[in-house]
Amino acid sequence: MAEQLAASPDSSSAHDEHSSDPAVMGWMKGEPVPADRLVNRETADHLRFPMTRWSFSHMRQFMPTALVSRGEGAPSNLPHNLRGDLDTVMLTPMGSDQSMSFEESLYDNYTDGILVLHKGAIVYERYFGITRPTTRHLLFSVTKSFVGTLAEMLIVEGKLDPEAQVGAMIPELAASGFAGATVRQVMDMTVDLDWSEVYEDATGDIGDYSTALNYVPRRADYAGPTDLRSYLATIRGQGNHGRTFTYRTVNTDVLAWLVMLAADQRLETMLSQRIFAPLGFECDGDLILDPLHTPFAGGGLNICLRDLGRLGLAMANSGMIDGRQALPAQVVSAIRSEGAALEGMHRPDYATLPGFTYRSQWWMMNDNCGAFMGRGIHGQALWIDPTANVVIARFASHPVAGNVPKDPSSLASYRAISAYLSDS
Amino acid sequence: MAEQLAASPDSSSAHDEHSSDPAVMGWMKGEPVPADRLVNRETADHLRFPMTRWSFSHMRQFMPTALVSRGEGAPSNLPHNLRGDLDTVMLTPMGSDQSMSFEESLYDNYTDGILVLHKGAIVYERYFGITRPTTRHLLFSVTKSFVGTLAEMLIVEGKLDPEAQVGAMIPELAASGFAGATVRQVMDMTVDLDWSEVYEDATGDIGDYSTALNYVPRRADYAGPTDLRSYLATIRGQGNHGRTFTYRTVNTDVLAWLVMLAADQRLETMLSQRIFAPLGFECDGDLILDPLHTPFAGGGLNICLRDLGRLGLAMANSGMIDGRQALPAQVVSAIRSEGAALEGMHRPDYATLPGFTYRSQWWMMNDNCGAFMGRGIHGQALWIDPTANVVIARFASHPVAGNVPKDPSSLASYRAISAYLSDS
Repeated sequence: MAEQLAASPDSSSAHDEHSSDPAVMGWMKGEPVPADRLVNRETADHLRFPMTRWSFSHMRQFMPTALVSRGEGAPSNLPHNLRGDLDTVMLTPMGSDQSMSFEESLYDNYTDGILVLHKGAIVYERYFGITRPTTRHLLFSVTKSFVGTLAEMLIVEGKLDPEAQVGAMIPELAASGFAGATVRQVMDMTVDLDWSEVYEDATGDIGDYSTALNYVPRRADYAGPTDLRSYLATIRGQGNHGRTFTYRTVNTDVLAWLVMLAADQRLETMLSQRIFAPLGFECDGDLILDPLHTPFAGGGLNICLRDLGRLGLAMANSGMIDGRQALPAQVVSAIRSEGAALEGMHRPDYATLPGFTYRSQWWMMNDNCGAFMGRGIHGQALWIDPTANVVIARFASHPVAGNVPKDPSSLASYRAISAYLSDS
Repeated sequence: MAEQLAASPDSSSAHDEHSSDPAVMGWMKGEPVPADRLVNRETADHLRFPMTRWSFSHMRQFMPTALVSRGEGAPSNLPHNLRGDLDTVMLTPMGSDQSMSFEESLYDNYTDGILVLHKGAIVYERYFGITRPTTRHLLFSVTKSFVGTLAEMLIVEGKLDPEAQVGAMIPELAASGFAGATVRQVMDMTVDLDWSEVYEDATGDIGDYSTALNYVPRRADYAGPTDLRSYLATIRGQGNHGRTFTYRTVNTDVLAWLVMLAADQRLETMLSQRIFAPLGFECDGDLILDPLHTPFAGGGLNICLRDLGRLGLAMANSGMIDGRQALPAQVVSAIRSEGAALEGMHRPDYATLPGFTYRSQWWMMNDNCGAFMGRGIHGQALWIDPTANVVIARFASHPVAGNVPKDPSSLASYRAISAYLSDS
């Protein structure tokens, strides 16, 4: 396939982090919108930088989505205690001997929105380009952390057996590479599959996957699977599960399927009733769907920045937010327990993650502060440092999908802000 | 084209108002959903009764939509003062000698949700099937009343000249049948066009229109316009504008275009900033888009029931809601002034509307109570009786598009409830 899940930079574009500002570019301005300002799905513009700086904040305008309702209650309290001293906090990117300020790191990472919470209050909040507090920005793989959290909830409730095998729970996958894997192996991505997550290879597995789920427009001569689950059934493997962590997005789509079967509920309903409403989210979410209404669980949730911060707050505080136990403490501790080591990973993406492990669709840093993360391509991040009581939520639209180019400054910026706030 | 804007009853279906309950039918239940429970866009299931009883509450799952943000404030207060005596209020449908109760009329009209407000409080609120307080139900042509209200706001502000000609404002329409019509004529639908709004004729103008905007899936051999505005430019007429009211949805798509040009803003932004946020809506809305992100202004807004009630409250109270002037009083009075007479209408649809006039995309009853309405196919309604201080908002999914089969009992039910509450 000519297109892929991740955005590809327009080779004719020499736009940097400033000139690519979508407000400056004027995407979708004009009635009718001139051709050179149109972000057109039919030509997959929405997946091509610098148009992505607009489209990642407007994904529902390109494909069908399900409502993830915040419910009917008032939002949980998120007090502002803004401080002006964070912009000049200095950091040194990994592998560099040149320091930069926190504010410089935001531009360096093509940030669309950034929120810093300390002790439950917003100490820093900033939006760039066309992103706003009510914008539902694409989370990419931070979506996975929501799905993993739901899975842990169902395990705690006894509704989902982590040792059950995929093939026994999902007959449609009994002949696939997932068949002999356990729920836990799917959660921790130790499933052995002939499937490669290489965003830069548009003709590879990621391209087939995104085409099947209709994330990228289909060419007229496309003859492959036309829905996500039919595609999942075509994936093969050698069956050596549980040995090596390998990051493969399709695991999360299988996990979401398992979770929906275990709870007998749609994913959007579970997200609403078990996460959005209990945490007091202020905005509804958008969940991208394939043509048969199957959610794109591997990376299709879109929410607003403060709500991503709310999830971080609850994860940092054993499930508590605004004085209430919104998520079971047992779920948070299960996620924070020992995960799959990343040492077996074969991809250069993970060079920036020394010591990390992966557990229940969350990234564990295993450093002295016990920080953990949700991470998504193009710079999406939810950083949670329970020791410093710091949460950082970030939306971004970096031209490169994989996190290697961004991690050196972004991870260093999160560490620097956590340390600074912890000391202050 | 084989499909059309309005839903067509499945000829093999003998479902009545009870057996068609979408919760009973079990649409979209199961992982994966069995073929006989799937509401599939590719086969246009979502436009076919009885699947419409599910799809009208889930339109964003079938096509791209824009967010219409409610803003960041708290919702306006909508106190509950529920009373149990409305169900048994009796009414006699027009042209009938058999009376029925209000509750019977709800089933008779395939009601999905009904809200009755009296003196600013909710006195009756009920949801059927799978529709809920947070459901964004398709408004169909009640959407038009939102667009007309925006147009009146811009006229009051001096940003839109009601006497300006369409062809002068929109060069793309200078060769179309709209060219010589004024903004006011578009607002009041006295534009003379060779275009017929016949829902039952799937091969007619409505079919072409819905296909161009991608509301219905396109056949592989489709060769017509592939976006809404290109289609509008193909419409022809004789130029005898201002003489006769004829209900044609395409007027509203032109009006929305005029409104967006006059304000230099997207329709979803205007709806958000000028209606949703000032009125304190509790839910965001979904606005259906064509492939170039042009809003389906003729009938593509989806909102929750209480918010439709909020618009009615403000319209009933000179723009006031919750003690605030949310809409300019001048806008409401402009809408309630003399409109285009329906006497010239040639369609049997209007047999049920004696004495009605049409003004700024609202229906004026011109009876002794000064009631006026927003009306949409398949039974959508916003009834506003300022004298009785009664507002009734209704979502429905009647198998027949046009309102003739429903008006005798639905209009009688609104009149009966208004009279009953006025007396009590």
